[in-house]
Amino acid sequence: MTVSDPVENLSKLIRCPSVTPEEGGALTALAGMLEPLGFTVERMTAREAGTPDVENLYARLGAAGPHLMFAGHTDVVPPGDESAWKHPPFAAAIDDGRLYGRGAVDMKGGIACFVAALARHVEEHGPLAGSVSFLITGDEEGPSINGTDKLLQWAHARGERWDAALVGEPTNPDALGDMIKVGRRGSLSGRITVTGTQGHVAYPHRADNPLRALTAMLSALMATPFDDGTDRFPPSNLEVTSVDTGNPATNVIAATATAVFNIRFNDRWSEETLKAEIAARLERAAADTALRPGREPARFALEWLGRVSPVFLTRDDKLAGGLSDAIKAVTGREPALSTTGGTSDARFIKDYCPVVEFGLVGESMHKVDENVPVADLEQLTRIYRAFIERWFAIAVAR
Amino acid sequence: MTVSDPVENLSKLIRCPSVTPEEGGALTALAGMLEPLGFTVERMTAREAGTPDVENLYARLGAAGPHLMFAGHTDVVPPGDESAWKHPPFAAAIDDGRLYGRGAVDMKGGIACFVAALARHVEEHGPLAGSVSFLITGDEEGPSINGTDKLLQWAHARGERWDAALVGEPTNPDALGDMIKVGRRGSLSGRITVTGTQGHVAYPHRADNPLRALTAMLSALMATPFDDGTDRFPPSNLEVTSVDTGNPATNVIAATATAVFNIRFNDRWSEETLKAEIAARLERAAADTALRPGREPARFALEWLGRVSPVFLTRDDKLAGGLSDAIKAVTGREPALSTTGGTSDARFIKDYCPVVEFGLVGESMHKVDENVPVADLEQLTRIYRAFIERWFAIAVAR
Repeated sequence: MTVSDPVENLSKLIRCPSVTPEEGGALTALAGMLEPLGFTVERMTAREAGTPDVENLYARLGAAGPHLMFAGHTDVVPPGDESAWKHPPFAAAIDDGRLYGRGAVDMKGGIACFVAALARHVEEHGPLAGSVSFLITGDEEGPSINGTDKLLQWAHARGERWDAALVGEPTNPDALGDMIKVGRRGSLSGRITVTGTQGHVAYPHRADNPLRALTAMLSALMATPFDDGTDRFPPSNLEVTSVDTGNPATNVIAATATAVFNIRFNDRWSEETLKAEIAARLERAAADTALRPGREPARFALEWLGRVSPVFLTRDDKLAGGLSDAIKAVTGREPALSTTGGTSDARFIKDYCPVVEFGLVGESMHKVDENVPVADLEQLTRIYRAFIERWFAIAVAR
Repeated sequence: MTVSDPVENLSKLIRCPSVTPEEGGALTALAGMLEPLGFTVERMTAREAGTPDVENLYARLGAAGPHLMFAGHTDVVPPGDESAWKHPPFAAAIDDGRLYGRGAVDMKGGIACFVAALARHVEEHGPLAGSVSFLITGDEEGPSINGTDKLLQWAHARGERWDAALVGEPTNPDALGDMIKVGRRGSLSGRITVTGTQGHVAYPHRADNPLRALTAMLSALMATPFDDGTDRFPPSNLEVTSVDTGNPATNVIAATATAVFNIRFNDRWSEETLKAEIAARLERAAADTALRPGREPARFALEWLGRVSPVFLTRDDKLAGGLSDAIKAVTGREPALSTTGGTSDARFIKDYCPVVEFGLVGESMHKVDENVPVADLEQLTRIYRAFIERWFAIAVAR
């Protein structure tokens, strides 16, 4: 079976230009790898008004438990200026021991290796002592509305249940084996709109400059750290991502001004306590900076944007432990169990079963000349295979 | 002569839709009022690359000194949503003792009254004991590049010299006779651009958020007043007019952020000392808020926008005194000699001769339903006439 070669698998996937939200042939190529292994492959298209239609894939091998899910995505971010690439972004060129292409590490590479690992496992051991499924979306790099979240709901409604999940996103900062992700800080975004009174800059007593209050509010959000971190998590961190007024006239005081911020928060906070702390900081700043002396506090609206991603931590030590052992056995490295970094689709999966994340080295992701050392692909395939063996041994023994 | 009726004059001017920079027939209508009085009327079109062509008017009655200039503009700001007006903005409707229309107080009304005042003076006294000229632009509400500034240069180059000038802009906050303007704070605008490093909000240590430094810089500009005012001037005041980032992604730290500010400054400052103070405040704030601990101070650029309007004060007590006496004689009010408010074309005229400003009540200017009480038009005409009599008597007696 050629699918036991991760380099061949990855080359096929890279040649499908699946720039989000386009399927680009990538899910069809993956189905072509899984069906010969005995998987039942299903395609599921999710639609929601105002968002792009997204094609997703769910494939299962085996009918019995225990049931391990491998999750990921075949969509990729746009290549940007293709002429800036050393090799065309969808050509899968191999040069000096590296395979080049958009999605090489994020994360067609992870999928290619898991397919190869499973193929090798089945070749050697025959049928699984349980089931493995692939839950693969085409909407991880896009709005993440018609992807993993909807696919999980769809599969769960059909009776699918999982005992554990591995997300194949790139997790290693420098070298393969550095880091498993076992949780993630939460993410909360908000928009502040301060409403003042428009007027001429020469008559500030007839106007209320909303930027005076907004500046004080942003200082209040940024000046004092929210916490110093916890046992398992780095400190919460707030960044103001945009402040906008759009006032072209230098002699006019604007009527309104807005700011958008995002905070990555740890398990020191719940959604409720965090929102309350942010609102309290803003209210104090507004009260301290009445728009002008003797006036009412600044009027502002605080609006939460999108859904909150709650903080989560995977407490399944057998899952993380089995993966950790596999990494150590193959690479000799002891991976850090980390909760750093941005959100991933693990935030949806955690509601169904314990989930960890481990994949390639992320350094070149989203960049020009995204590439992966061919040696890393073989190494990750071995890690995944060792994990599959351990996980089924542990899970069956439970 | 019908031009002795300010209501009729103003109605004619309002019916010309001279929304800046359009002439809209307004200068032609004014010429039609001045020529029968004996004025020599000249039209001058100013052009400069990248700015709208502007039509201007210069008219003189008399050849000898002393020479009094009346200055103003016939261009008006756009009416905005015309359906929001009680009466159409270019119809000059009279309703309940008020004349409605764009430009009614800013400042076709001032022109209409001065024409009427002069007509009445000439009717009663015959030829002037000197000269009066009208220096009227169509570019006061626009960029002010092809207007009064160019018209003064043009007239001066042809040998025109003036002993005093009266600008007919609306100067009264509440009632006719409240306020003469005898000077003005300077105006200086600048743009701050902070350059950081773009990155993902979940990895702030790999990015530099420019909004962190910019917020601190704006606090430094706004927190401490620049001064407490001087004998003749109100305090200097800085307003931040726009802060812009334009970053649509809540998970991305922006690469750059900009802020624009304007300061109205008094005679405590020169252009040089003020620019130095602002730059010093920004540099201190940048040094105090290195983009992140242990890093270099924030990188920023400070750019001065447009020309500085210098501070000025008219020290011609005979000009201001004559006008003050005229106001007192007609209204019984003692006008304040003020230096408050925004810039006007007086900033150009002050380089040629002493200049004061007095006109209608400004309350409705630039608003929907701009209007003037008909009684105020008659009252201002009487004030202007009393001023003309006093000024020529004073000037001749010198």
